[in-house]
This record gives sequence, C-alpha cells and structure tokens, in this order.
Amino acid sequence: MSRFLNEKFKSLEAYTPGEQPKDMKYIKLNTNESPFPPSKGVVDAISADEVGKLRLYPDPEGSELKSALAELYGVKKENVFLSNGSDEILNFSFMAFFDKKGVVFPSISYGFYKVYADLYGLNYEQIPLCEDFSINYKDYVGVEKNVVIANPNAPTGMTLTLSEVEEIVKSNSDNIVLIDEAYVDFGGESCVGLTKKYDNLLVCCTYSKSRSLAGARLGFAIGNSEIIADLEKIKYSTNPYNINRLTMTAGLAAVRDNDYYMNNCRIIEENREFTKVELEGLGFRVLPSKANFIFAESDDIDGGTLYSDLRQRGILVRHFTSERIKNFNRITIGTLDDMKALVSAVSDILKSKGELK
Amino acid sequence: MSRFLNEKFKSLEAYTPGEQPKDMKYIKLNTNESPFPPSKGVVDAISADEVGKLRLYPDPEGSELKSALAELYGVKKENVFLSNGSDEILNFSFMAFFDKKGVVFPSISYGFYKVYADLYGLNYEQIPLCEDFSINYKDYVGVEKNVVIANPNAPTGMTLTLSEVEEIVKSNSDNIVLIDEAYVDFGGESCVGLTKKYDNLLVCCTYSKSRSLAGARLGFAIGNSEIIADLEKIKYSTNPYNINRLTMTAGLAAVRDNDYYMNNCRIIEENREFTKVELEGLGFRVLPSKANFIFAESDDIDGGTLYSDLRQRGILVRHFTSERIKNFNRITIGTLDDMKALVSAVSDILKSKGELK
Repeated sequence: MSRFLNEKFKSLEAYTPGEQPKDMKYIKLNTNESPFPPSKGVVDAISADEVGKLRLYPDPEGSELKSALAELYGVKKENVFLSNGSDEILNFSFMAFFDKKGVVFPSISYGFYKVYADLYGLNYEQIPLCEDFSINYKDYVGVEKNVVIANPNAPTGMTLTLSEVEEIVKSNSDNIVLIDEAYVDFGGESCVGLTKKYDNLLVCCTYSKSRSLAGARLGFAIGNSEIIADLEKIKYSTNPYNINRLTMTAGLAAVRDNDYYMNNCRIIEENREFTKVELEGLGFRVLPSKANFIFAESDDIDGGTLYSDLRQRGILVRHFTSERIKNFNRITIGTLDDMKALVSAVSDILKSKGELK
Repeated sequence: MSRFLNEKFKSLEAYTPGEQPKDMKYIKLNTNESPFPPSKGVVDAISADEVGKLRLYPDPEGSELKSALAELYGVKKENVFLSNGSDEILNFSFMAFFDKKGVVFPSISYGFYKVYADLYGLNYEQIPLCEDFSINYKDYVGVEKNVVIANPNAPTGMTLTLSEVEEIVKSNSDNIVLIDEAYVDFGGESCVGLTKKYDNLLVCCTYSKSRSLAGARLGFAIGNSEIIADLEKIKYSTNPYNINRLTMTAGLAAVRDNDYYMNNCRIIEENREFTKVELEGLGFRVLPSKANFIFAESDDIDGGTLYSDLRQRGILVRHFTSERIKNFNRITIGTLDDMKALVSAVSDILKSKGELK
C-alpha cells in the first residue's frame, strides 16, 4: 500500500478470484467455465480481417450487438447495456444506485457484492440463508432498500421462482432490485420479461458461462431504459470504450449460434444430474442446483481436505473457508468424462481414508 | 435519467468520444488511431486455437504480458499495471489517490480529466496554458496537490522536457504526479525511467496509438510498486478480469514486434512534418506537435466551418467548441496518401471560399 491511497480504501478487502493455473494439467472445475468451446461461428468471425481492424476504436455504443441481444431477449435496444464482464454491471450499479437507501443481499452469495458495498462505503445488510441454504424470498419483500440476489444463487445453485422474484420487485418499487442471472441458462427461470412491467428491476447477465466466452469478458444488463441510460452515463464517465472489438464480434456471432449454446446447457444439466446421483451414492449431500455447478458436502470428509486431495489428483474445485459453508465444495459441471473423473477421484479419496470399501 | 440515480451523479457531464462512423467511407483523422494495421505477429497470434480458449477466464494477473512489458520498458513486473485501455488507469487513479489534497491539470487537455474529477467529487483546479498553448511547467512546481499532465499534451501536441517533468515530480513529493504518455512514441521524451527515482510518479501508457491496438483496449501504467499495488487493489475490487484473453495475446505479440511499431512511428513523424509544411503553406498556424496529430487554425476559415466542410468531403477531423480553441481542428496523422487528400481538400475548401487562387 502506498502513502497516497485514500483513507477510505485502506482497509478494503478485494475480491479473490478462483485459481487460474497457467498450465493446463488440471481438470478445471473451479470457476464455472463451460467445458465446450465457443461455436464455430465465433471462431470464424474472429478472422484475420477483423484482427486487422484492431487499429480502430470499437463502436462505443455497441449498436449492432445491442440490437442482436435485444432481439434475442425480446426487448428494445435501449433496454440493453453492454459491459466488460458482468462484474462491471455490478460495479456500476453499486456505484450509481445504492447510496441513498443502502442495499441488502444474501449472506452466502457471490462474494463480490460485499466488496462493492465496502468499496462505495454503502450501508448494507447481509440476510442469512434458510437452514437448507435456500433464500426465503419473504426476507426481501418490502425491505425498502435496494436488493441484490443471484438467481440461481452462488455457490448453492438454488433458485427463487419467477413469482417469488416478482413479489420482491413489486414490493420494493422505490428501490432497485438487481437480479444476477449469471447462471440462469442451466434450468432457472429468467425474469427478463418482468423488466417490461417494473421500472425498478435490473437483470444482470453474462456470456461467460452458458456462451463459453469467459475469456472474452462480455456481460449485459436488461432493464428499464432510464436505468440503462444511467449505466451508460457511468460508463461514459469512466471508460467509454469498455468493450473491445473482438469481444463484440464474438458476442454477435454467439447470439447467432444460440441453438448450439442452449444444447450445451442441456448437456450440462444431464451431467449435473449424473454427478449429483453419483456423489449422493458416495454419501454426499448435494444441494438442488439449477446452475452449472453443484455445492456438495459429506460427513465423511472435511471440505478443505477434499479440496486439497482433489487438487493433488489434478482436479480443481472451489472451496470457501467461511464458517457455514466450509465443509462444502463448489464443483463446476464439465463434460461427462470430467465428471466421471471427479467421481472416481472422490471415491478413491474416500477409500484411501477408509470411509469406503 | 432514472429516479434511482444517486444525487451526486445527476449533474455529471460524461465524456463525449470522437465520432466512430459505422461505415468506412471516411478518411478517419478524428480519434488518433494508427493508419497502420497491427503487426503480422499480432494477426498470427490470434489463431483459431486461441479463440477456442475463450471458454476459459483470462489470467487476472496478466503475468506473461506484464513480464514482457517490464522487460521492454526496463522495469520490474511489480512496476506494471495492466488496464482495459488507459482510461481505466485514469479512472482508478482519480478514484484512489486524488481525494485527499485534490488535483490540478491543464485547462486545455484531455477532456476526461475533468469528468473524472467531477465523478469523484474532487477538489480540482484547471491551470491555463500559456499564450502560445504550451504548458508552463513552473505552474506545477510545488503546488502541493496531485498533478495530471498529458505529455505530449492533447489536443495541442506540445511537450514538456524530461527535466521539466522531473522538476514537477520532485517538487510535489507528497502527491502523485500522473504523466499521461498516450502520445509519447511520436517524438516525446518518456519519463518512465524517473519512476525508479521517485515513488510519487505514475506514468500512464496505451497500446491504442503507436501499437495500432485501439480496438483491443490495452493500457498500462508504470510506477513504484506500492502505487501499482494500490491500482491492483482497486482492480480486484471492481473488475478482476479486466483484460480479455485475446487482448493479452495481441499485446504480447505487439511487444515482440516492437521494431515494426517504432518504424511506423517514424513514418507518422515524417507525415506530420509533411502536413505541417503544407498547411503552413496554405496559411495555417500549426502548433509544434510531437504527437500523432496536429492542432491547426487559420485566419481564413472558421474552425467549425473547416470541420464541416472536410466532413462533407469525406474527411473526419476533430473540432472542439470550447472558446479558446474553437478556431482549431485536431487532425490525426495518417498515411501520406491520407494527408495529401487532407491538404488537397483543405486547399479546395479555401479556394471555394475565395481565400486561395
């Protein structure tokens, strides 16, 4: 830390991303990436000709990509905001909207919400999950504060129904309700349609998971045109050219290849079910997930030990050390081969500890 | 504007980027892009294989690219910060460092400095340029505030010497001096070497201009490791994966092809000299530029009129409407053919107004 840093940031604890090992020797089930490559259309679109155009700035409005996303999601172009990964939407939203009345979010959720709240010095409250790790939507009805909820939630994978989300949105009409749908394509119910009915709903989306573009950094938000205009104002006051040319090109091609990606999501769901059944067979408790990961624990092995033992066997999963979830591991759903390798490794680890015969 | 936007942003005036026309019919001399494509190494590096890896997050540390830049600039890896375009460095710096004692910058300079100062509600002072549009370095010696100076300055193209920069840095040792070297490769003197001597100097650099990568969004800062660590902290508290995979790949290849880019810079300098001489021959006053643009005015034609007339003839330049510089146009230096077309168009415009025979 330098002697120049503003006082208010001195005690700030930044977010810690999952490990990104530089070699490729791991089966990587730790950061919820897709096991499937981008579509052929994406690969073809990033041609030598497009790379040659990198000498020119991107279109700061991202008009073409916005129009394509608007059509795909059944909204208008002015309801779409493009961002350098969906973290940027969260960042701008915490900065732009949550100062006045503060913000609430679940105590176990995407760890970045707390970082943003601290960064901007906001009043915030973390609402505990239920005993079964679900979110009780009633805890958020009429709170008269801004609300942020990941649906499906991370790292649990558990969901709210569309009508529960609507209750939250409807009952907090003087505050923003931000629903983070990073994982919605793996079986959740999107609330994008509700943005036409409620001007206080902002939906945060990403192409990092279901669209195999984590490396391209493309997020987008859908909401009332006035909220979107506010996000644009923050963007044009911080980093107008926030999306690079090739990411816009990739995103546009991915919108056109939507069927490929939706099919991948169905395969992930099948592999998730396979993994859940297998781990339950090994004595694990697996929370009911609608995301591209599962959250699992066993009485037979400590969560931290399982994480380390899997790592030694070349499989990376994600372990969190906070008290209530420290016995769990979050396991990204990969290919069927990946998941068979995981199950086999877990079985071996339990055997080596004498827990299985 | 929505009813949810924080009060403090309601009157904020965002930055207005230069026009990015969606068709390619213009000779585009308005946003200081390079007329040269990225090097063959960059085009080759963005292979189908690399695009396939977009399913994976980028390395949030950017280790390989940082090391390459550190070697090129003769510093250590911990002295390098990578950003999504150099605007992000400015944004983070205004946010992280300038709150305590406020900040000063030239009244005529990159228009974004004022936007950042307003965004973060900072105390700031804009120091007027001299009569000849140069920066008087003595105005910044011992001001006991943070200092931001573009060197070369934009839109004038005029420079401070290295010893003048050192005087400013040395005399403000309790504040950050941020030198924005976006345009330094076209004949200016870089102060990167001074970062080893002064822990309060932060140098802001970009691959958008001299490295033909405006569309890739790659900036970097060089400074004392503690200042760099602070910038990392802000990055990890806002958007850890701020640089996408393909931009890192492009940047790394561009570092390796440095000779190609340095040769392009020399050609730009020659074309700049050609354009200056020709426009002076047409009666223009051209400020002495060390950037990849010139700033020119004529008593024979109003700046706004020249801008519009050039646009009608298919040539885009940049015109600013603020009082002191409204008779000028900023003209990016392109290929020799581009500049001949510009000179010819200017000559035609003057003739059509009866100012030339």
